[in-house]
Amino acid sequence: MENTITSSTSSPKGRGVNFATPRGFGSKFKTKCKETFFPDDPFKPISQEPNRLLKTKKLLEYFVPIFEWLPKYDMQKLKYDVLAGITITSLAVPQGISYAKLASIPPIIGLYSSFVPPFVYAVFGSSNNLAVGTVAACSLLIAETFGEEMSKNEPELYLHLIFTATLITGLFQFAMGFLRLGILVDFLSHSTITGFMGGTAIIILLQQLKGIFGLVHFTHKTDVVSVLHSILDNRAEKQKYPKLFWVSAMGPMVVVVVGCVVAYLVKGTAHGIATVGPLKKGLNPPSIQLLNFDSKYLGMVFKAGIVTGLIALAEGIAIGRSFAVMKNEQTDGNKEMIAFGLMNVIGSFTSCYLTTGPFSKTAVNYNAGTKTPMSNVVMGVCMMLILLFLAPLFSYTPLVGLSAIIMSAMLGLINYEEMYHLFKVDKFDFLVCMSAFFGVSFLSMDYGLIISVGFSIVRALLYVARPSTCKLGRIPNSVMFRDIEQYPASEEMLGYIILQLGSPVFFANSTYVRERILRWIRDEPEAIEFLLLDLSGVSTIDMTGMETLLEVQRILGSKSIKMVIINPRFEVLEKMMLAHFVDKIGKEYMFLSIDDAVQACRFNLTTTKPEP
Amino acid sequence: MENTITSSTSSPKGRGVNFATPRGFGSKFKTKCKETFFPDDPFKPISQEPNRLLKTKKLLEYFVPIFEWLPKYDMQKLKYDVLAGITITSLAVPQGISYAKLASIPPIIGLYSSFVPPFVYAVFGSSNNLAVGTVAACSLLIAETFGEEMSKNEPELYLHLIFTATLITGLFQFAMGFLRLGILVDFLSHSTITGFMGGTAIIILLQQLKGIFGLVHFTHKTDVVSVLHSILDNRAEKQKYPKLFWVSAMGPMVVVVVGCVVAYLVKGTAHGIATVGPLKKGLNPPSIQLLNFDSKYLGMVFKAGIVTGLIALAEGIAIGRSFAVMKNEQTDGNKEMIAFGLMNVIGSFTSCYLTTGPFSKTAVNYNAGTKTPMSNVVMGVCMMLILLFLAPLFSYTPLVGLSAIIMSAMLGLINYEEMYHLFKVDKFDFLVCMSAFFGVSFLSMDYGLIISVGFSIVRALLYVARPSTCKLGRIPNSVMFRDIEQYPASEEMLGYIILQLGSPVFFANSTYVRERILRWIRDEPEAIEFLLLDLSGVSTIDMTGMETLLEVQRILGSKSIKMVIINPRFEVLEKMMLAHFVDKIGKEYMFLSIDDAVQACRFNLTTTKPEP
Repeated sequence: MENTITSSTSSPKGRGVNFATPRGFGSKFKTKCKETFFPDDPFKPISQEPNRLLKTKKLLEYFVPIFEWLPKYDMQKLKYDVLAGITITSLAVPQGISYAKLASIPPIIGLYSSFVPPFVYAVFGSSNNLAVGTVAACSLLIAETFGEEMSKNEPELYLHLIFTATLITGLFQFAMGFLRLGILVDFLSHSTITGFMGGTAIIILLQQLKGIFGLVHFTHKTDVVSVLHSILDNRAEKQKYPKLFWVSAMGPMVVVVVGCVVAYLVKGTAHGIATVGPLKKGLNPPSIQLLNFDSKYLGMVFKAGIVTGLIALAEGIAIGRSFAVMKNEQTDGNKEMIAFGLMNVIGSFTSCYLTTGPFSKTAVNYNAGTKTPMSNVVMGVCMMLILLFLAPLFSYTPLVGLSAIIMSAMLGLINYEEMYHLFKVDKFDFLVCMSAFFGVSFLSMDYGLIISVGFSIVRALLYVARPSTCKLGRIPNSVMFRDIEQYPASEEMLGYIILQLGSPVFFANSTYVRERILRWIRDEPEAIEFLLLDLSGVSTIDMTGMETLLEVQRILGSKSIKMVIINPRFEVLEKMMLAHFVDKIGKEYMFLSIDDAVQACRFNLTTTKPEP
Repeated sequence: MENTITSSTSSPKGRGVNFATPRGFGSKFKTKCKETFFPDDPFKPISQEPNRLLKTKKLLEYFVPIFEWLPKYDMQKLKYDVLAGITITSLAVPQGISYAKLASIPPIIGLYSSFVPPFVYAVFGSSNNLAVGTVAACSLLIAETFGEEMSKNEPELYLHLIFTATLITGLFQFAMGFLRLGILVDFLSHSTITGFMGGTAIIILLQQLKGIFGLVHFTHKTDVVSVLHSILDNRAEKQKYPKLFWVSAMGPMVVVVVGCVVAYLVKGTAHGIATVGPLKKGLNPPSIQLLNFDSKYLGMVFKAGIVTGLIALAEGIAIGRSFAVMKNEQTDGNKEMIAFGLMNVIGSFTSCYLTTGPFSKTAVNYNAGTKTPMSNVVMGVCMMLILLFLAPLFSYTPLVGLSAIIMSAMLGLINYEEMYHLFKVDKFDFLVCMSAFFGVSFLSMDYGLIISVGFSIVRALLYVARPSTCKLGRIPNSVMFRDIEQYPASEEMLGYIILQLGSPVFFANSTYVRERILRWIRDEPEAIEFLLLDLSGVSTIDMTGMETLLEVQRILGSKSIKMVIINPRFEVLEKMMLAHFVDKIGKEYMFLSIDDAVQACRFNLTTTKPEP
């Protein structure tokens, strides 16, 4: 092996840069589109299938996942799924009622929303752990968008607009999935979601505290506190003893049942205990005829629909994915969007409001040992039975119990540890998180979100506007060249400066790149003869970027410094050839590795400057 | 040398990754800020100066460039500057009158605007070629912002608001320079400016054509066409015979003078030849008392001020820089912003409207051989003389002559060759350019600009959302690993897959990176045992990015594939250590080069799997 290296370093011309003809625009464009919209290449196994019938079957299985898992379903899985389904139902009732209250809509809508959507998700969803349900943050955001005034003065119009917003959400989510725009959800970073959830939890907590203190005059203070405490204790215990999760999973239902019984026995309403109020028996009535497309409200409806749709997607997809990872399963973001979309479209026709995969319910589902989306079907069936026979019983639920349930759920959403971790590792991530947290807490939910996403985008833009460059030195006794700051033992070479450019080199950073290169050269204590630019890390360049490099070459030329280009990558080299950059720089100034370039420069030096 | 390579490859542990303690937040933050706001490190030579007096002198020279060049000024330079100054004055008069017409303000304001600002620029400006003046695009944009109605019905208010907008522009430009926010101008790419100028030229041309055809009834058609033709011919000739540039430089002035003489002799106004109308003798009156901060108009004023300010900066800085490069001089973007800002602030107090460094004037200045900003002083003095003694003479200028001047200038702004070049080399750059071109032509100037900048930003975001990855193979007979697609001769190794990740790895692309890595592995025909991730090109990573890599490791672990990290860069490694990523991956799975990793993996294979 040593021989080959010696021979190759002594004749570097033998393995130079590959100046093949650039690919056509068509093939490059196709590759780009594929990478942008189909990074997981989902149709490959389908298109490779030779049998036509099997191909259709695979395609159907891809688009409607139930066809994939149902044929393999057995009694063993059913046992787990029934258990998980019953468990999440016990959460669905109190959460459904509570979050409907947050959205200022009749509590029965919350129960309806746990009946139809789970069936839809079971057919189209690709996550085995996700439990469908309503979420606190979006419920509150909806109420905020339409305003308290409308919900009080025109409750019917308000409800109809919420159904319409749910339809918009569904269509938007479906379209995003169909157009494979999962890329938009990517910009709602983990830090943003953490901050957003925390901020939402804070405002909901404050709201509920107000409610609870309002009730203090009518009821026994100790009661409220004790309920709250018992739940909090349950939660804490849960983390220490995972087996006790049943306590926390069943806690809310127990609160509701006990609350109802007590309120009923003591004739609470007569004593001033506020309860949920009448709940009609019966399944979801159709709501398709209630959709309201009045142009007066359409702006608001679209805003509510799209903003909540995005947040619901980000939360649902992130949560589905987190739990899938623990089981080494895969979820497909775009498929999930289509499933969420269909769920909300059909939901908006059947008196449901926005649903997604909430964290608390999904966690309970996962811990209860769910195996497939069948647990959602079980929950749907249970909800059907409750709606048909038991709904009126829940009308005795004391509001204060609901407050306690909401608050206990909210406390779990403030992820202190994650925030502290962000602070330790990445201050900018922490800033993004805090801007969402405080923005939501002190301004409004959508502003908090916009500011936080804004910071994330600024970070992305700052990254491309100021790509990191570094000076390389040779690691002693090797042909490796590494960052001198990182590897202080590496050696600089007299007369050479080797710079590694960050990626990309384009319009937004061309001035910076030029200034930075010139500054590296100015800062050199000794005169230099060669500037070696290592482009290994530069994955793309544009016209402005190439012009900048030419400008640098011209400026250096006037100081008798030669510029050498090292290892331009595929796309970069193609553009350089199309723009005649290669001809202007000269092919003899382009090398495949730093070592080759150094050898060639040394050779060049000895031939052009005769020894004295 | 062969010896060292052999020894190092056989014992790769000896030169591993440098796991030094990460730098503190303070020092990292300082470096980041410096790179973001002071990439050219302007104060280094000043702070290195030991003598206090000299230090103050250098600081003064830095902030007020005239102190730098004036002491070295001599008669030789003056000769050139006087010639250039007179030449640009001959352009300043017709352009000043014409562009003021475009902005729907009295023509004398256009002349005023070429008197005060050049003196200010001469003191603070850092470009030796730039000629100060008004520009067509911004003049039109101002008129568009305030609306035709106001300019007709309330011409005084309209003018006062324009002065106020100029003040806002100046303050904004000064602040940008002072806060070193040149980074914002970076996002107005060359392609955007090309398209914007072209689109502006088209609408101005159409406007003027309308004017000309409106005049056809009153004057001799052939005259108009011949004037236009002669100017066009001059321009064409200019490109072929550079020496003839005087013809083009003086052309507009000749048109104005001949037009005036003809209109005066034939008593044109009586025969229906529309002329500029009364021009008062005398210097700029103060306008500081005319500034209008009525809250009713403040929104409009700010919009006009900031949008035109940004465009003027982008144009002025880009042009100043282009010409400086030809002479191997440097211009400082942030200093230029401060100079432009002061120029417009003082201008708004002295009856001037928005000025910057227009392309046509600067090109003429450069061609006339200017050496220092003194040519602007010469122009200012000439303008003073004209304002004091000759202004009334220009009132006979026929409007049709001005139209011809404007049109001839506009034709030069449509840069077909550049557009074609963009089309050939970079389709996305072409899209950015065309969106500005057609957006300005068919929608409005600000929408065209916003759409084009929007596309540029989408491009930057798409870049970070979909960083390019590639599979590496060993270049035969070497230790170099390169893109297999680019170098088809490079060899894959059985049981290994080596992937090079693009930069950065963070929230916006974490899902993509994970999917892409898993897809590379799925697409391998043979079973693999090691995934080697080359992070040489990854210059930054965030929490989400690190979690993604851990997730990939976990997924691969279940398939008995080991993940190996190669050459994490400084910032990346620091974050990995802070986030305990290194402990989770294991230091023994991190290497400084691909070759080291391959050697170690091979060693590992033979030790863990006993030979049969």
